[in-house]
Amino acid sequence: MTSFPKEELNRVVRLPERGHYDKDEIYPIVDSAILCHVAFQIDGQPHVIPTLHARDGDTLLLHGSSASRMVRHAAAGHPLSVAVTQMDGIVLARTAFNHSINYRSAVLYGTARLVEDPTEKNRALELFMEKLIPQRWYDARPPNAQELKATGLLRMAITSASGKVRTGSANDHDEDLELPGWAGVVPARMMYGDPVDAPTLKPGIPAPGYVRDWVKKLNS
Amino acid sequence: MTSFPKEELNRVVRLPERGHYDKDEIYPIVDSAILCHVAFQIDGQPHVIPTLHARDGDTLLLHGSSASRMVRHAAAGHPLSVAVTQMDGIVLARTAFNHSINYRSAVLYGTARLVEDPTEKNRALELFMEKLIPQRWYDARPPNAQELKATGLLRMAITSASGKVRTGSANDHDEDLELPGWAGVVPARMMYGDPVDAPTLKPGIPAPGYVRDWVKKLNS
Repeated sequence: MTSFPKEELNRVVRLPERGHYDKDEIYPIVDSAILCHVAFQIDGQPHVIPTLHARDGDTLLLHGSSASRMVRHAAAGHPLSVAVTQMDGIVLARTAFNHSINYRSAVLYGTARLVEDPTEKNRALELFMEKLIPQRWYDARPPNAQELKATGLLRMAITSASGKVRTGSANDHDEDLELPGWAGVVPARMMYGDPVDAPTLKPGIPAPGYVRDWVKKLNS
Repeated sequence: MTSFPKEELNRVVRLPERGHYDKDEIYPIVDSAILCHVAFQIDGQPHVIPTLHARDGDTLLLHGSSASRMVRHAAAGHPLSVAVTQMDGIVLARTAFNHSINYRSAVLYGTARLVEDPTEKNRALELFMEKLIPQRWYDARPPNAQELKATGLLRMAITSASGKVRTGSANDHDEDLELPGWAGVVPARMMYGDPVDAPTLKPGIPAPGYVRDWVKKLNS
């Protein structure tokens, strides 16, 4: 399956022409960000929290603490919704109404299970870190039994999803193009700075090349 | 009331020492971002979508389309949860377990009502735009009746909230400080570029000073 069926659950209701259902469109948005927002509902009250994610095929790995409300609730098999959003710019139109945001967003649906087997968990954490910061896993002390236990790792099967994308400049109607005001875009993006040594770092340990390469790639 | 009572709903469960309940701590996080994520639940399925927000005292203005699933559902008085998250850096520790993110996040709870009276709606949209892009409202054509109708503006009373903040560098335990690996932080932030003219812009209309000032302030 290369795209998600468009159904009531994942249908882009507003501005459907901006909607995407192909994995080729949705997954790059998911992979472009480190942070996602996970929504879940407990006793009639929705919650949404930010967390780290990494995608493994049609599965989303969600990181948390074993003690967290989200991890405990999701592990019980309740449905989740996960949003990944990148803001690319702020669009200023000649008309108040046509002001907008350039963005790439993905919303994923599914249920998750907690990765509990220590071997599977260790492998999943390795994959998770490898997706986030390539090569880092092999340069850090692996989790010990206690740390492994304190880490909550969820595998959410992505059963439905949609993407929504806006690009381009101000879209005023023809009759508004003669208005005297300025129109255009203020570009926006996440920028990552040079690695800053921890105050506790022993002298003579430079930031590794793979960290510098990763920062360069994040900024490219 | 200067802080939100800590209760089951808004309690920071994991790493409670990072939790904040004072409005003085939470509201600056809310105000620092343009985008939020709104969670709501329809027929047992949580949804989460990104949208624009602006705060008016203890009220959160949420922008959408009158046609959107979120606006229609929220307008019916169902409970919402809204997250505002700023990522400030990626923390690389000597141990896999202590890798982390520097962030400021706020989670707000409440129910909303749709602003329907045209005069109130126009005033709320003015306030909304004034918070987002100061002075812009007065430089753009105001919404006409049809545009006003197509815009969905929600006022959510913030009845509960919490903030969560991590700052600083890698926090490895003493016994891990002798490990040979590098540790530190890769700073992260949203950066806004110079205004880019719309292709349809007539010659001789420069980006206004208040737009350039606003971009400078966003980057400061």
